[in-house]
Amino acid sequence: MSSLFLRTLREDPADAEVPSHKLLVRAGYIRRAAPGIYTWLPLGLKVLRRVEAIVREEMDAIGAQELSFPALLPREPYEASNRWTEYGDGIFRLHDRKGADYLLGPTHEEMFTLAVKDLYSSYKDLPLAIYQIQNKYRDEARPRAGLLRGREFIMKDSYSFDIDDAGLDASYQRHRDAYIRIFDRLGFSYVIVYAHSGAMGGSRSEEFLARVAVGEDTFVQCTVCDYAANVEAVEIPAPAAVSWDDAPAAHAEQTPDTPTIDSLVAHLEQAFPRDDRSWTGADTLKNVLLVLEHPDGTSEPLAIGLPGDREVDEKRLEAHVYPAEFRPFGEADFAAYPDLAKGYIGPGALGEESKTGIRYLVDPRVVDGTRWVTGADIEGSHVLDLVAGRDFTADGTIEAAEVRAGDPCPRLDGGVLEAERGLEMGHVFQLGRKFAEALDLKVLDENGKLVTVTMGSYGVGVTRAVAAIAEGTLDDLGLCWPRNVAPADVHLVAAGKDDAIFAAADRIATELAQAGVEVLYDDRTGKVSPGVKFKDAELIGVPTIVVVGRNLAESGTVEVKDRASGEKTEVAAEAVVAHLLDLVRP
Amino acid sequence: MSSLFLRTLREDPADAEVPSHKLLVRAGYIRRAAPGIYTWLPLGLKVLRRVEAIVREEMDAIGAQELSFPALLPREPYEASNRWTEYGDGIFRLHDRKGADYLLGPTHEEMFTLAVKDLYSSYKDLPLAIYQIQNKYRDEARPRAGLLRGREFIMKDSYSFDIDDAGLDASYQRHRDAYIRIFDRLGFSYVIVYAHSGAMGGSRSEEFLARVAVGEDTFVQCTVCDYAANVEAVEIPAPAAVSWDDAPAAHAEQTPDTPTIDSLVAHLEQAFPRDDRSWTGADTLKNVLLVLEHPDGTSEPLAIGLPGDREVDEKRLEAHVYPAEFRPFGEADFAAYPDLAKGYIGPGALGEESKTGIRYLVDPRVVDGTRWVTGADIEGSHVLDLVAGRDFTADGTIEAAEVRAGDPCPRLDGGVLEAERGLEMGHVFQLGRKFAEALDLKVLDENGKLVTVTMGSYGVGVTRAVAAIAEGTLDDLGLCWPRNVAPADVHLVAAGKDDAIFAAADRIATELAQAGVEVLYDDRTGKVSPGVKFKDAELIGVPTIVVVGRNLAESGTVEVKDRASGEKTEVAAEAVVAHLLDLVRP
Repeated sequence: MSSLFLRTLREDPADAEVPSHKLLVRAGYIRRAAPGIYTWLPLGLKVLRRVEAIVREEMDAIGAQELSFPALLPREPYEASNRWTEYGDGIFRLHDRKGADYLLGPTHEEMFTLAVKDLYSSYKDLPLAIYQIQNKYRDEARPRAGLLRGREFIMKDSYSFDIDDAGLDASYQRHRDAYIRIFDRLGFSYVIVYAHSGAMGGSRSEEFLARVAVGEDTFVQCTVCDYAANVEAVEIPAPAAVSWDDAPAAHAEQTPDTPTIDSLVAHLEQAFPRDDRSWTGADTLKNVLLVLEHPDGTSEPLAIGLPGDREVDEKRLEAHVYPAEFRPFGEADFAAYPDLAKGYIGPGALGEESKTGIRYLVDPRVVDGTRWVTGADIEGSHVLDLVAGRDFTADGTIEAAEVRAGDPCPRLDGGVLEAERGLEMGHVFQLGRKFAEALDLKVLDENGKLVTVTMGSYGVGVTRAVAAIAEGTLDDLGLCWPRNVAPADVHLVAAGKDDAIFAAADRIATELAQAGVEVLYDDRTGKVSPGVKFKDAELIGVPTIVVVGRNLAESGTVEVKDRASGEKTEVAAEAVVAHLLDLVRP
Repeated sequence: MSSLFLRTLREDPADAEVPSHKLLVRAGYIRRAAPGIYTWLPLGLKVLRRVEAIVREEMDAIGAQELSFPALLPREPYEASNRWTEYGDGIFRLHDRKGADYLLGPTHEEMFTLAVKDLYSSYKDLPLAIYQIQNKYRDEARPRAGLLRGREFIMKDSYSFDIDDAGLDASYQRHRDAYIRIFDRLGFSYVIVYAHSGAMGGSRSEEFLARVAVGEDTFVQCTVCDYAANVEAVEIPAPAAVSWDDAPAAHAEQTPDTPTIDSLVAHLEQAFPRDDRSWTGADTLKNVLLVLEHPDGTSEPLAIGLPGDREVDEKRLEAHVYPAEFRPFGEADFAAYPDLAKGYIGPGALGEESKTGIRYLVDPRVVDGTRWVTGADIEGSHVLDLVAGRDFTADGTIEAAEVRAGDPCPRLDGGVLEAERGLEMGHVFQLGRKFAEALDLKVLDENGKLVTVTMGSYGVGVTRAVAAIAEGTLDDLGLCWPRNVAPADVHLVAAGKDDAIFAAADRIATELAQAGVEVLYDDRTGKVSPGVKFKDAELIGVPTIVVVGRNLAESGTVEVKDRASGEKTEVAAEAVVAHLLDLVRP
């Protein structure tokens, strides 16, 4: 450490939002170069390389072959797949001195597909799995949390190529199994959840989420069965349609000053009290207006009808309208649709067949026969007993309503959902034939007929894994690496000024290094006090800390401390190398 | 090979210019993704990683510490060093969704300097050497020769930081020694030459050039001493000034129709014959006009005076006017300077003090007292006996004249120069304080005084090394890798259809793999003939080829072939694993 390119900081960096980010900067693992763009200092690079090595070993173990595509990519393949347009502002674009368009690759489906098309031509060549571990680029609107959502980051991305669906299932399973081994070895707590796959047009799709509070994703798990899903992917179980034979005719009522659900429920309770039960937001149908903005620059209004006790979940909505983005319906938008009575909008003014022509999608719970209180499209007026299927029909359904803890499990097994935060670390995904079709990847089958190849797509966020491991293991004192990814095996501290202490520590460092143990040796002299060295060791978070100090002269022992538990053992200085070898290579 | 992601080609790719490029594509090592941008297929990536590993080991061995800067960099540091402007069209620039300027790093002096400034503050922290192995980007005007001059490529770049010049000398020497070990291990023929360092403003500067005919650089070596230099860096030895006491006065003469040196010499020979010797181009002073274009968009004329028997060497000129570029003086430029008589331009019309005010730089051989025939600034007229120092004075000298085989060694030891082509593989360079000053990198010295740090800059072209090794070792049959960087140790061919052949080859492959030997096993069945397998083995170029074929049944032997020499040895199948282990791990 007297020569290591490292400077630990006592203060948190001003721009750091989450604990792992603060500690990775303070402990000298990374430095910010620009928003969402980081430099890896020597300690950080060691952890990153160890994570990469684990990922590489497990990919090689399932026969996946490593190659490496450029990060700077020509526009053409992305044009063919339509992603040049779909990505919108989300990617970095540039042009070269001749004016040709390029992008910094956010993901490489197109390149993998074209490489296979270039090299392979027969079913005999399949199955194939190829991967790379490489820098990716995304121009995030809000880079955040240090390495957790960066703009330049390392991913392992692999793709499988199969002649048929059964092959894809097998390739998918091999990758899924490999991912379990990877995340087990990386040493953090994770959960495998169903993921939304609509955007890419594929079928089976699961995410590996780290269970950390700073996660950007919310996932739900059933209290009874093994159902677990990213909220984006939760499919609300639609109740069965009910008969409307007994339902009264819809009737519009004066409901002055009830532009919100709360005010409406209060008014209903007072003006139309029910014998059997109170009115709640769930009795009302709330219609939310948005503007969808497509990547090609066009935009269109969209109305979403959902039970009044639920909000639109932006992430769920985002997932289901991708690649379009959305923004709230503004004053100017209302002005363009005089038939919309703001605060009192009902299905009567919505739908492609209505006067406004605004596309109208409803929550899956709005099934035929359900009865609603909803806007009458007149300021200060609502309709009661409006029956879906009888009095109105939407243009379709959308999964945009929030999913709440306590909601029934979609498997309807009596369990309810619990919600937790998670951070996406890996994604396994049956991509299907979308890219193979767009880029015309066909091979000859057994009968000499050209068939389109089916693909799987599998990603691990390598940079993000470093941050997630840090986040999931840190404590009040600092970082606290699992042994598999720590920047060193042993942090050896020479604590004191005596030559004997340094001589003993030097010997231990040398013997450990000769045995192939990676030692971070705090050999700093001069004004660096033992206290500073202890604090640095705790901050840096190597799993085993060895202190050669006062006890050496008094009892001939050194202290071996487990960074995570804090447990200390006094070990004879002569025996400590053997002791450490047992610890490090059990 | 039955499952390796590989397809060898019998035909050369259309866009390949040099043999290594053709073979790397044909043998399935790389594929072009865009001009100057390549995908590394599995075999290529193996070679690349082995080169990286050698570079890394030797850098680590001299105590250099690895870190990793981003490739996507903010503008600001490059603004501070003025390189944002200096780079002109040579870099890729882009902006993010907020409009902030970024570049794809062509080299990272600024980032290294700022990192040290961020972390270090005292002379006690020095010396320091840090490095990275990372993607670099340059928007080359003419990407060429496959990997030899790409637009995305991997470099190892390191920097040393020292408190004083003696420290820099020591750091430089350590890197130089490490580079010798690196290039020795990479196994190609190279030469260390003096390099031009003017552009970066540093002092000592040497290049490691691979001796390959496709090299873009020309270097010269003395036939007598150890002088070797890139022609860019050759400093013409200025002869001593001579007395002009005996020189006649300058006299203008009619020399009609002599706009070229050849026509002038012919005219002189006829009109002014000399008793003692014939006229040659070396007696004449040719004045070449150019326009310098500066990166800031401004431009200015420049006149270069040089002996008439020499041309301007564009690469030497380029090196000496960098970061400016130059273009020929065109008709419009001549029109702007009516005092210039095209074809008959002399020193009288040149120089900052002259009527034209055009800056006038002369070859170092134009010393005081030398006598010249040169233009009289009148159409059809030249001046004879024009004496430098007496009749004209230039604004300075410039190293722009071509250096030719046979020229005297600049050390004037009686040796003459021989010229050869080379390809820059590495560069060691005493950068000095340029970047430390621009970015204010100071540390406290022993007396508590702030002093500017002095830096060294050291690069190895990793991508280029792969191509250079290929280029330097290939033969008529294909690639021919040195053992240290080959994609495998042994290429094992099962040649035949018998089960016994495959069984024996399987056993050999398994035993070699268990012993840690990397085997490329051609286990292809079906229609792939032994002839195709042999051709592929030769094309791919693994140093040892083992053929399990006919002889197995006949004599129980297999053939071990040295790819480079073609030498074949029959070895008993039972003994071949031990034989190969001896070969591979001598």
